[in-house]
Amino acid sequence: MFYHIKELQYQAKPERPDPIFARKLQEALGGQFGEMTVMMQYLFQGWNTRGDGKYRDLLLDTGTEEIAHVEMLCTMIARLLDGAPVGDQETAAQNPVIGAILGGMNPQHTIVSGLGAMPVDAMGNRWNADYMIASGNLLADFRYNLASEAQGRLQVARLYEETTDRGVKDMLSFLLARDTMHQNQWAAAIAELEAKEGDIVVPTTFPRELEKQEVSYVLFNFSQGNQSAAGRWAQGPSMDGKGVFQYVECPFPFAGKPKLKPAPPYIHDTPPAAMRQEEDVPPNLA
Amino acid sequence: MFYHIKELQYQAKPERPDPIFARKLQEALGGQFGEMTVMMQYLFQGWNTRGDGKYRDLLLDTGTEEIAHVEMLCTMIARLLDGAPVGDQETAAQNPVIGAILGGMNPQHTIVSGLGAMPVDAMGNRWNADYMIASGNLLADFRYNLASEAQGRLQVARLYEETTDRGVKDMLSFLLARDTMHQNQWAAAIAELEAKEGDIVVPTTFPRELEKQEVSYVLFNFSQGNQSAAGRWAQGPSMDGKGVFQYVECPFPFAGKPKLKPAPPYIHDTPPAAMRQEEDVPPNLA
Amino acid sequence: MFYHIKELQYQAKPERPDPIFARKLQEALGGQFGEMTVMMQYLFQGWNTRGDGKYRDLLLDTGTEEIAHVEMLCTMIARLLDGAPVGDQETAAQNPVIGAILGGMNPQHTIVSGLGAMPVDAMGNRWNADYMIASGNLLADFRYNLASEAQGRLQVARLYEETTDRGVKDMLSFLLARDTMHQNQWAAAIAELEAKEGDIVVPTTFPRELEKQEVSYVLFNFSQGNQSAAGRWAQGPSMDGKGVFQYVECPFPFAGKPKLKPAPPYIHDTPPAAMRQEEDVPPNLA
Amino acid sequence: MFYHIKELQYQAKPERPDPIFARKLQEALGGQFGEMTVMMQYLFQGWNTRGDGKYRDLLLDTGTEEIAHVEMLCTMIARLLDGAPVGDQETAAQNPVIGAILGGMNPQHTIVSGLGAMPVDAMGNRWNADYMIASGNLLADFRYNLASEAQGRLQVARLYEETTDRGVKDMLSFLLARDTMHQNQWAAAIAELEAKEGDIVVPTTFPRELEKQEVSYVLFNFSQGNQSAAGRWAQGPSMDGKGVFQYVECPFPFAGKPKLKPAPPYIHDTPPAAMRQEEDVPPNLA
Amino acid sequence: MFYHIKELQYQAKPERPDPIFARKLQEALGGQFGEMTVMMQYLFQGWNTRGDGKYRDLLLDTGTEEIAHVEMLCTMIARLLDGAPVGDQETAAQNPVIGAILGGMNPQHTIVSGLGAMPVDAMGNRWNADYMIASGNLLADFRYNLASEAQGRLQVARLYEETTDRGVKDMLSFLLARDTMHQNQWAAAIAELEAKEGDIVVPTTFPRELEKQEVSYVLFNFSQGNQSAAGRWAQGPSMDGKGVFQYVECPFPFAGKPKLKPAPPYIHDTPPAAMRQEEDVPPNLA
Amino acid sequence: MFYHIKELQYQAKPERPDPIFARKLQEALGGQFGEMTVMMQYLFQGWNTRGDGKYRDLLLDTGTEEIAHVEMLCTMIARLLDGAPVGDQETAAQNPVIGAILGGMNPQHTIVSGLGAMPVDAMGNRWNADYMIASGNLLADFRYNLASEAQGRLQVARLYEETTDRGVKDMLSFLLARDTMHQNQWAAAIAELEAKEGDIVVPTTFPRELEKQEVSYVLFNFSQGNQSAAGRWAQGPSMDGKGVFQYVECPFPFAGKPKLKPAPPYIHDTPPAAMRQEEDVPPNLA
Repeated sequence: MFYHIKELQYQAKPERPDPIFARKLQEALGGQFGEMTVMMQYLFQGWNTRGDGKYRDLLLDTGTEEIAHVEMLCTMIARLLDGAPVGDQETAAQNPVIGAILGGMNPQHTIVSGLGAMPVDAMGNRWNADYMIASGNLLADFRYNLASEAQGRLQVARLYEETTDRGVKDMLSFLLARDTMHQNQWAAAIAELEAKEGDIVVPTTFPRELEKQEVSYVLFNFSQGNQSAAGRWAQGPSMDGKGVFQYVECPFPFAGKPKLKPAPPYIHDTPPAAMRQEEDVPPNLA
Repeated sequence: MFYHIKELQYQAKPERPDPIFARKLQEALGGQFGEMTVMMQYLFQGWNTRGDGKYRDLLLDTGTEEIAHVEMLCTMIARLLDGAPVGDQETAAQNPVIGAILGGMNPQHTIVSGLGAMPVDAMGNRWNADYMIASGNLLADFRYNLASEAQGRLQVARLYEETTDRGVKDMLSFLLARDTMHQNQWAAAIAELEAKEGDIVVPTTFPRELEKQEVSYVLFNFSQGNQSAAGRWAQGPSMDGKGVFQYVECPFPFAGKPKLKPAPPYIHDTPPAAMRQEEDVPPNLA
Repeated sequence: MFYHIKELQYQAKPERPDPIFARKLQEALGGQFGEMTVMMQYLFQGWNTRGDGKYRDLLLDTGTEEIAHVEMLCTMIARLLDGAPVGDQETAAQNPVIGAILGGMNPQHTIVSGLGAMPVDAMGNRWNADYMIASGNLLADFRYNLASEAQGRLQVARLYEETTDRGVKDMLSFLLARDTMHQNQWAAAIAELEAKEGDIVVPTTFPRELEKQEVSYVLFNFSQGNQSAAGRWAQGPSMDGKGVFQYVECPFPFAGKPKLKPAPPYIHDTPPAAMRQEEDVPPNLA
Repeated sequence: MFYHIKELQYQAKPERPDPIFARKLQEALGGQFGEMTVMMQYLFQGWNTRGDGKYRDLLLDTGTEEIAHVEMLCTMIARLLDGAPVGDQETAAQNPVIGAILGGMNPQHTIVSGLGAMPVDAMGNRWNADYMIASGNLLADFRYNLASEAQGRLQVARLYEETTDRGVKDMLSFLLARDTMHQNQWAAAIAELEAKEGDIVVPTTFPRELEKQEVSYVLFNFSQGNQSAAGRWAQGPSMDGKGVFQYVECPFPFAGKPKLKPAPPYIHDTPPAAMRQEEDVPPNLA
Repeated sequence: MFYHIKELQYQAKPERPDPIFARKLQEALGGQFGEMTVMMQYLFQGWNTRGDGKYRDLLLDTGTEEIAHVEMLCTMIARLLDGAPVGDQETAAQNPVIGAILGGMNPQHTIVSGLGAMPVDAMGNRWNADYMIASGNLLADFRYNLASEAQGRLQVARLYEETTDRGVKDMLSFLLARDTMHQNQWAAAIAELEAKEGDIVVPTTFPRELEKQEVSYVLFNFSQGNQSAAGRWAQGPSMDGKGVFQYVECPFPFAGKPKLKPAPPYIHDTPPAAMRQEEDVPPNLA
Repeated sequence: MFYHIKELQYQAKPERPDPIFARKLQEALGGQFGEMTVMMQYLFQGWNTRGDGKYRDLLLDTGTEEIAHVEMLCTMIARLLDGAPVGDQETAAQNPVIGAILGGMNPQHTIVSGLGAMPVDAMGNRWNADYMIASGNLLADFRYNLASEAQGRLQVARLYEETTDRGVKDMLSFLLARDTMHQNQWAAAIAELEAKEGDIVVPTTFPRELEKQEVSYVLFNFSQGNQSAAGRWAQGPSMDGKGVFQYVECPFPFAGKPKLKPAPPYIHDTPPAAMRQEEDVPPNLA
């Protein structure tokens, strides 16, 4: 169960309105790696954790904090939209600055949300749960979390470079720091689980003898050129300590050409007669 | 540029048709972490790599292999659908086995694809590019790749448990092994880049002094109970070696309550009069 | 900012596992009118409210409660999935009960979420923000909230009818009661705002003289038959008290046929010559 | 069955082309609350009505009119796009007005639709049926209709403010008036159904004694601060006349902490051993 | 503008309810090539036609008819759902026939639509405008229409094979016949436009000398094996009568390897140093 | 199985960066009719072909080539983005040219992809498999392919008109030529299959006597005005040679008004009492 206090976790005050940047900042709120994603992802992972120890607690600590980040971003975006201009081509033609703003802002910020934040990314795509995962396997999920925080901090860093507003930069500096913590924390949790489970290959519980082990440590060179042969992944012991990397310069197929049976008549695929007939025609290439 | 040969990378022959399993196996083809995802993800990452050395080559090696995995799965699914039954409630009522099959299969496998594989997951959601990322930052992307392979191998392992068909299990054992390699390979590439860039926090190029460093290594206990305090992430040196983890049991807000300005009249939000008036009413709680 | 406690707002314990019902219950969690929708909707509406009085507070009270409902549903669904069977056509054929379960459950509950709840509806569609709105106009939004709670309670009532499990019914009886409150509360807030704003037509701030008032209270009979003429909406004073309902039995167009200009050549639409030429052909109907 | 006449219900002629406004006006055509939504929503509700009296007729009257509104908007958008400029950065750089237009218009209006209207909103999101509902319960649906018309008229009013074109404003004044009627008409139908069904809580047919009635009229104060206690929803008789509103300042949970059972091994979630082990570690917080 | 009459274009009465088939029949209503698609597609194409001659009229004739087909399908689906069973695992276990029905039907038909048709396909995906096009170029659009009718009739034919209900088959026989007409009609319109425009390659107005004509009639053999050389497309005059088909057995690239420049520092891509460094490492393959 | 070589099929070098055009060119990469669509479409059609003759080979030849087109477009877009400007409203205000670029470009090209191509269209919609089909019936699919190539070439021609960059135009001239070939090739394959199958109405295998043949060649005039009567589709022998086109000026319905039965109580639709009661009210229209 949750409680809310009205105070923000960190201040969210721009120096001045900037509807173009409001649109861009939506990426950090409702984008693929925005705060809505990590909020829902950590909460679902926490609620679905089977066992109620420290991992569940950590997920719910962090998921609950992320709701506060969503709140900060909504507040900041609403303020960046204060008094946003409206207007049509006439307006745009009269004042190039207003024209540029009208071109660069998200028109739904006036038409749909009435100068409020929206659950969308910088191109107006609505947030959706395709962005998140809660698999029941914490090592898999913590890796996804670490990856999400890496992508998320990268995007916030880019947004930091795209504004001159000190108020915005101040809030972003807080989010950047939290993303630093979150990358560190998931890295720690991953290290601990890898140690406990005794393997780095997820799921660690699947018996290795059931996989086709002759290809478990092989790099196939499917893209012409041998640059990739120079990497750590092409030689030496494998990262999981259970094999040795090999490099196969000219990969061959392990199987023959597939041939599918015709479909039954009630499916109304191309009739076999039409398919068979064609092969009677002699090819014009010797 | 690409060339195709008709041979499959590995055989894809089930012992017998099984349209229920065909539907499930779609997850490994067109699901969030299916082969279509990693195929498009590695190819886009490779094509967008700025610099043409071994990382680009590795991405294109692997992306090109994944197209072959998509091909294998399409072939397997088509064969699992051979002669799939059709029928309505009458049919279902007469034979419980047929009834169960009609209930458990994806009806679009007969209606839409004519017994062919579809670019969908096990619930029929069409594949979409929300599942993938190519960010231009390889450390961020390799982490996402490692996470994708972990989720992907987890799903293939679960599918392996859900079938008794030796032909299907044989093909899955190949995919499991390749996912073992891919987890190892991205882990190796990550280790190398972390070493080269001298940090584990993505992006490593953003100056740390610009982030709010006092919260860069702090775990805030937003979910009541101290279990998470017992973790590695709450004490000792941080994973990036640049700080010390701290645990804050009772996190307080850093900022006050936000108050947004009224919108201009042309926005037609709730008029300020209606908002203001309400606050004049004395609260009924002392 | 938010705090979480581990206790659930209300108990979420089924009498027995039931993966078929777990799938159905997803509608109340991640469907169009599920708890994720109202949670995000109320929070966004609250955060975007310009003015910080009782409406903002009410929205955040309710939005925060809804996070707890999402939590309860996740917990219930995970328990309904306890030990869910896996298996293929062979399994289904051997035991009609298992066959029916395999047919009726969501296979992603084993393959993707590992027996955890997912952010999806009963057909596996991922939750997305198309389901919600925060417009900045509270009267418009409270109406949408009332409508969402009506649809939501309707669905929960239907789900109540579709299970025999007393534990599930108990939790649903709690959600039904809360939806009763929420319908009452939004109805109260709507009545208050309508009174304050002095109109029921949203937005109340748009000057009525700027709309084409001759059609502001007219029912046009576009579907043959006069049954709709018998309704309150076709006669008597309008609900906003500003007009009188009229019924037009044979609605005529107010304008002529449109004719669009040809596109410029650089657009490569059908060339005007091809369009013009055709009209020279004498019609074969006198 | 339907018949079409070529005349428009109301004229749709702008004074001059304006591709920026064409893009914005798409919101009223293909957006969440645009004319496509209400058209499909009313038609589906009408066709699904079980009983063929005045409600079905009213829905089909209105749904059929909405097709004509879609037609008017398509015509207006095509005319706003007449001779829309094309060009790249060079062009934009040479003429700031053209630059602003190129920035502000939807480039798909030239590339994809050849100067025609598209089934999209102002940010180019394709229309989809997530926007609509037809539930079989008319009171629930009429509330959703009233809410949709409120959001829709709000958006049209905002669009009216964003143009100086008298032709566009003229057409919008017609749509505004029709939305006035539609809000009045759904309000009338709701009042009638509430009276007939003897309750305002949807569905009115679900026995109240089956819900957890002790929480049916309670406002839980989950967001710190008592402003919401001052509202009508926190005191006095409930709107449905069946209870009395109560305000709970410090809401407590009704249930304990949930604990989920481990998953069976074939699911490959985090192994219980890895979960259990962790709890042996003594917490570092007294 | 449109008028509706209550009569159906053709009868839509099943012999008996069948909720499994109701779910499947949704494909013909709200699927990729269902009636909603062609309805919206033809109407948008008609409204966007620049010029108001016979093509516009034909599109609006057909689009208006398709609304009636949507109406028929909604009616049929509602009747197939009459009295659909509800129930959970207990119910399913007691009666294999009910179990099969519960497994095979769409549970949203009870939970969401209350036994009404939904704007979804057979897997519950909501209809969306990605399925349709109106490009402004009628030859391009008529081809898309012909293709849509071919896919649509194919699906209806498959559905015809999947039911034993004579009432359903009767209605499908009407839709099949109309699809026969529509395939014929678009074929006729295509033939006429190809003749008028003097070419079959869309857009016919783009000057051929601006394309790289040396590859305008070449089949590149990118998939090993020469079977495709035996086709009409690999030899003889081209279908547009402007060239001669050629077959290239071993296609070579026309360009070299691309090398992308590093990104500027403010983008925070992988730093060039990390990229460059790697290439200094001597490859381990001679 | 596939092999990749590093060389591009054709050069992809712009004269200068142009982030506005980069955004537009995304349509040809990740749009509804972009190269990703035809690539996945042809590959799936090829892999699903039941029979392994020349049609399968042709599909795989062409699908494999399209991967190379995706690669070329990614490369071109990355180069058009070289050194793309970033900045906020301040920047836009200072320099109208930069302002226009910031307004016209896709901000995700800096924030999300780090100056790389994305799997999106010109409005930032992510690519999804709704755009493609593989039905198992090659005549249906080849028609869809021809239509896709027509729409695709039309869009590339429009893009060609929207740039002044000779490098971009050069690459587009190559794509235009290939689309010429592909339109010719699918036209040839269609002609061959129509001849072999002896009909043009897909599926040709469905017995014509089972369709309602009296409406198989009738044009119903549902849109007032007889312009469409002047077309080839309204008179003379049908295109399939099996009937004669007829024109029906005043189409009448073949069936009566539908009346749906009430839903059972457990569905909680509007109660029949509320529906019935209303019809007792005498209509106010004589």
